[in-house]
Amino acid sequence: MIPQGVATFLPEAAYLKRVIEREILTIFFRWGYQEIITPIFEYLDVVSVGIEEGVLEKGYKIVDRANGRVMILRPDVTPQVARMVAMLFSEHPKPLRLCYRENVFRHEGEHEGREREVFQVGGELIGLSGPEADAEMIGIAVQSLTRLGLSDFKVILGQIEISRNFIEKTGLSKDGKKQLQEALIKKDVGVVKGILKSSKMSKKEQKKFLELVGLIGGEKVLKEAAGLISNPTSRKALKNLGDVFSLLKYHGVEDRVMIDLGEIRGLEYYTGVFYEVFAEGVGYEIGRGGRYDNLIAKFGSAYPSTGFAFDLERLELALECQGRHLPFSTADLLFAGPRKHINQIILAARKLRNQGYRVIHRVCDGESHSVLRSYAQSMGIPGILLVEGEKEPKLVIVNTESGKKRKGSLKEIGILKGKTFWK
Amino acid sequence: MIPQGVATFLPEAAYLKRVIEREILTIFFRWGYQEIITPIFEYLDVVSVGIEEGVLEKGYKIVDRANGRVMILRPDVTPQVARMVAMLFSEHPKPLRLCYRENVFRHEGEHEGREREVFQVGGELIGLSGPEADAEMIGIAVQSLTRLGLSDFKVILGQIEISRNFIEKTGLSKDGKKQLQEALIKKDVGVVKGILKSSKMSKKEQKKFLELVGLIGGEKVLKEAAGLISNPTSRKALKNLGDVFSLLKYHGVEDRVMIDLGEIRGLEYYTGVFYEVFAEGVGYEIGRGGRYDNLIAKFGSAYPSTGFAFDLERLELALECQGRHLPFSTADLLFAGPRKHINQIILAARKLRNQGYRVIHRVCDGESHSVLRSYAQSMGIPGILLVEGEKEPKLVIVNTESGKKRKGSLKEIGILKGKTFWK
Repeated sequence: MIPQGVATFLPEAAYLKRVIEREILTIFFRWGYQEIITPIFEYLDVVSVGIEEGVLEKGYKIVDRANGRVMILRPDVTPQVARMVAMLFSEHPKPLRLCYRENVFRHEGEHEGREREVFQVGGELIGLSGPEADAEMIGIAVQSLTRLGLSDFKVILGQIEISRNFIEKTGLSKDGKKQLQEALIKKDVGVVKGILKSSKMSKKEQKKFLELVGLIGGEKVLKEAAGLISNPTSRKALKNLGDVFSLLKYHGVEDRVMIDLGEIRGLEYYTGVFYEVFAEGVGYEIGRGGRYDNLIAKFGSAYPSTGFAFDLERLELALECQGRHLPFSTADLLFAGPRKHINQIILAARKLRNQGYRVIHRVCDGESHSVLRSYAQSMGIPGILLVEGEKEPKLVIVNTESGKKRKGSLKEIGILKGKTFWK
Repeated sequence: MIPQGVATFLPEAAYLKRVIEREILTIFFRWGYQEIITPIFEYLDVVSVGIEEGVLEKGYKIVDRANGRVMILRPDVTPQVARMVAMLFSEHPKPLRLCYRENVFRHEGEHEGREREVFQVGGELIGLSGPEADAEMIGIAVQSLTRLGLSDFKVILGQIEISRNFIEKTGLSKDGKKQLQEALIKKDVGVVKGILKSSKMSKKEQKKFLELVGLIGGEKVLKEAAGLISNPTSRKALKNLGDVFSLLKYHGVEDRVMIDLGEIRGLEYYTGVFYEVFAEGVGYEIGRGGRYDNLIAKFGSAYPSTGFAFDLERLELALECQGRHLPFSTADLLFAGPRKHINQIILAARKLRNQGYRVIHRVCDGESHSVLRSYAQSMGIPGILLVEGEKEPKLVIVNTESGKKRKGSLKEIGILKGKTFWK
């Protein structure tokens, strides 16, 4: 009945999504980031210079009735931010810290099982080239997940220039390089070896490269790598990776980060340190980010930049897999009574709401206690206030779960203390 | 460079939008409403039965690549909720209280000056037919605006059955009725008179009708109207309007509500009490709502229902016109110092963030105090923490605005008290 892969959030799912957005943005705000909302449509010809071909192909396109130009539904946020920075923030002092919670859209085949609407929360740090900027983004990513109560996750950290440089030096054809890259992503050592054999690399270099891309672990990996890398560009990239890692200690997140010198799964626009976040229980990365120093220049002025985003649906899955449950409830109180007392009920419910209670009020003539209790139970409402009495309204306070009752008074409402007085 | 009428929210605008959404939803939550997120695409043939023709025409349509079916980008939320209630919530106990913050999309001509992406916050109360349901929605609408600090606004309240019934009785052609309706919306008494003259109404009835649609005001309007209405359907509708109005007193919002018996600007799907919210300074309604007892039946099961939504952009305009300014700032503190002290700065900034401060940290070698102060000023950051000193790092606390400095110590960071210790 509705298009496949497009999201519907029923109350509990919507609540969970909003909590996750709010908690991650709380961390971004504490680091001085400002939320923006990018346009949901862009003109294809304007934004396409910053979007990868594969993503462009999957984009939802639509003709603007006003002028016949082709628009694309936001397929990726970072290129939009790049366009906005070049066009709207050129006068704004840098660095610029921006964050967002948005959905992106990509046509996916019906049997690929992927969502076509993906919800993201992410941020971009624009105008800083130093390692402290990369470390900041990783610090925010880890702190966000910790705040959400995710217990088991890792940031897999790489530096795209190291392997990119090696791949360049193979002297392989464009296709050959692509095959090598794919084999490296799959960590298929046999295929990698085969391709390297057909390259111009010396045997010694081949061996070093294979050792290098197999290096995964903590700080000591950096030392081991130093012995395998001789050309200046790669050495500089390795030094940069080390600088970023050493700052992570002061952010208190180094335990969550694992260096992987075989990590190569970067988007085309990455130019330095980049990373993917993996959580126990989820087969795909739940977030990714990295440095993209050449992207904004495609839209005008050049700024070194770095950013990351989480995929909310995968993050939710990770929380669920790891037994992290965020409690959800509809309301605190069901406030019910006969129509003749509705005015008093409305007045008293108003007082309770002004104190912050979530109150559903309800006219019920002739409904039994058990009907009301069953409604409250099915809605997850822990307390019931019942107004009874022929002339003077009298109050009965019921605990939904136990059914235990006690008498109260409507006058009491204003002075009821405690968050769960119905217990 | 970007499609006209599609929203871009820069930081201050995004902040304002989020505050407004949050404050209105806080009220909804206190009344026991649950947020949902409806799909951004619907299949045209499925949802179109509940959408007005004019709205359908303006919809953005796109072909689903997976199966060739036509999809429409959400043009109105209420019909989506109706579809969801009929299809997904049929087993769920009623009444059901749902709320949402969403954008809807409509093609508008380039010169009509209207937005094509409209941001709404609204709610629906499903499964209640009594006046307490209508009063509840109006109570929530008024309380939301009051909470936002909007000072000058009115809810214009009507009952669609009263005038609909009169219009029916004119015996005019379909076109004639439409013309009459349009003249009534414009409150063009001359044209209304002319059309009525050509109708089958007696002169006496014409006079009564003209008097009736001219009735605007508080409770006494109801009494005056009673003398002008004789047929049972209209009398019942008037009684219902009175019942709703009398409950509004107990919600404490009757001062904000004005009855208008000439109010006729309802959507086709309204069936009872309906209203528009107007604010001083804005030429269009900032919100609207009403009862729609026949809409959900179009998708399956029938439920009496009522709902309303605010237009966020118009609401923002109203707040601005009425001088209600929501203060916006980027961060509380800029924490800067030379690279050699970056580790200590990161550690101390982390302590501050854990206390809830919003802190931007920055490496600055050789930048003067005045450069930092000017950056902080342009970003709206009220305090600066500067780390100086050749060997041992020393802390200087600067008030951005006054430039006043005092000495501090990095060890002090953990115990700095007060929300604005830099003052």
